[in-house]
Amino acid sequence: MSALILGSIALDAIKTPFEKRENILGGAASYGAVSASFFTTPHLVGIVGTDFPQEHLDYFADRGIDLEGLQIVEGKTFHWSGEYLADMNTRETLATDLNVFEHFTPTLPESYRQEKFILLGNIAPSLQLHVLDQLEAPRFVVMDTMNLWINIAKGELTQLLTRIDMLLLNDTEAHQLTGELNLIKAGKALRKMGPEYVVIKKGEHGALLFTKDQFFSCPAFPLEKLDDPTGAGDAFAGGVVGYLASQLTADTDHKEIDVQLLRRALIYGSVMASFSVESFSLDRLRSITFADIQERFEKMHELSSFEKK
Amino acid sequence: MSALILGSIALDAIKTPFEKRENILGGAASYGAVSASFFTTPHLVGIVGTDFPQEHLDYFADRGIDLEGLQIVEGKTFHWSGEYLADMNTRETLATDLNVFEHFTPTLPESYRQEKFILLGNIAPSLQLHVLDQLEAPRFVVMDTMNLWINIAKGELTQLLTRIDMLLLNDTEAHQLTGELNLIKAGKALRKMGPEYVVIKKGEHGALLFTKDQFFSCPAFPLEKLDDPTGAGDAFAGGVVGYLASQLTADTDHKEIDVQLLRRALIYGSVMASFSVESFSLDRLRSITFADIQERFEKMHELSSFEKK
Repeated sequence: MSALILGSIALDAIKTPFEKRENILGGAASYGAVSASFFTTPHLVGIVGTDFPQEHLDYFADRGIDLEGLQIVEGKTFHWSGEYLADMNTRETLATDLNVFEHFTPTLPESYRQEKFILLGNIAPSLQLHVLDQLEAPRFVVMDTMNLWINIAKGELTQLLTRIDMLLLNDTEAHQLTGELNLIKAGKALRKMGPEYVVIKKGEHGALLFTKDQFFSCPAFPLEKLDDPTGAGDAFAGGVVGYLASQLTADTDHKEIDVQLLRRALIYGSVMASFSVESFSLDRLRSITFADIQERFEKMHELSSFEKK
Repeated sequence: MSALILGSIALDAIKTPFEKRENILGGAASYGAVSASFFTTPHLVGIVGTDFPQEHLDYFADRGIDLEGLQIVEGKTFHWSGEYLADMNTRETLATDLNVFEHFTPTLPESYRQEKFILLGNIAPSLQLHVLDQLEAPRFVVMDTMNLWINIAKGELTQLLTRIDMLLLNDTEAHQLTGELNLIKAGKALRKMGPEYVVIKKGEHGALLFTKDQFFSCPAFPLEKLDDPTGAGDAFAGGVVGYLASQLTADTDHKEIDVQLLRRALIYGSVMASFSVESFSLDRLRSITFADIQERFEKMHELSSFEKK
């Protein structure tokens, strides 16, 4: 089935200890939709300005992404600028120019209101709620977030948690949202806040999946080359949602999804994140085929499995 | 086969954000030998003072640890005092009183010189070298170390690396010793310094194993209760060496150890570390049986495996 992907679409300026790039394609929905497009047909919900290069629109279309939900309005596209420190993990936001994003209140096209698989990508919780409210019968809703929203919109975010099926967030956000320093306790506490499935992302250390009575430790794909961590979490989210949408039907009981399917979804998410960070912007995702993804999926199995005897 | 375990034996004072304990059994060799004792017969090489409680000696003996290599000399036992900060990961050393340890130059008992499986636990590299030099035909030498020795004894440590089979160290030590911030590059760089097998420990994020043409991502056992991280690395080392000693023979080609066996060794090491941190000192290790270890080993398999389809 198809998947609705909501989030920011941006033109980024990124600085790392090694390199600097300006005016490159970014944003949660860009990474999420392109990543998901390897598994399913993403229906993109977002906004760009009239300055948004046609080549990026062509790229989205080439990837089979449905653009009916993409608004193009007079003005400048959302712009984010950030700098990574020496460890390539810590980053500082240098500038956030909302531009056309400032007055974005997405009205879903009629054809999108029946979407069953939803990725509420990293964006203001009020917008995530606004989109969720327009869906007639969503079956599986995945939500990503970030520290900013936990700081300034915790109320709406907490309200959202009771309406979604899977929460994705990173380790520091899990601490921040629950007050728990222990990640295992944090994961369990987050499930009590609503979502049936909680995924705590740990960057180079992989991710943890919490379900009712299961726990899965998902490794990270080992990388020697890391050009730009921007969008890793979004590419991860796109892989998870894309794979689930490709495997589940609208009839699947979303509270009882096969654990092995969920585990595979995380592995595909990790694989997509691993490609994403190997180049700036979506450049590495542009160069891969599904066979490359499958090759890393197999390697993930090889590098994490052991025979009991 | 048996395993020679070298390292410090200490009376520790530990402070965590939650609790404080004084005069408790500690030291790399204590944790290492007790951990290994669940798999093999450890031959302990270390030193204590005449103040060392008889009950600890009795406990070692109860665990089947051979104490012929343990020196008891006039004076006070090595004492270490440390404090853990709120995250339970960062620690500060408050005091290090070498006491009888200051003039420790272990002369191995005749019966120990034929030992094949060796754990050079965390201790000054000069002492690790001194013990290694007395062994007639060691077959598999595992070495642990710490940041202190990388700072003040890098020459001897580097020399040791060319004479051992497996190096255990944590992620910050791997950065420190290689100058590489990327752990995958660091692991490969460490292998080039000598050891056939390199294990980078990442605490709550598990451990990474580097071999000639394989890579293994070993998860950490998920813990909600963490009383005292002291000795986790030593318990890990004891589990790795103990399991390997129980499975390998003196004839095993130590450059070509079965990868699955090495992976299981890391899993057992992680399991031993997970028990160790659940109480202060060796208290949790005192309360477990091999069935408890095996139960967590099975859980490690369950929480890290996924079906490809």
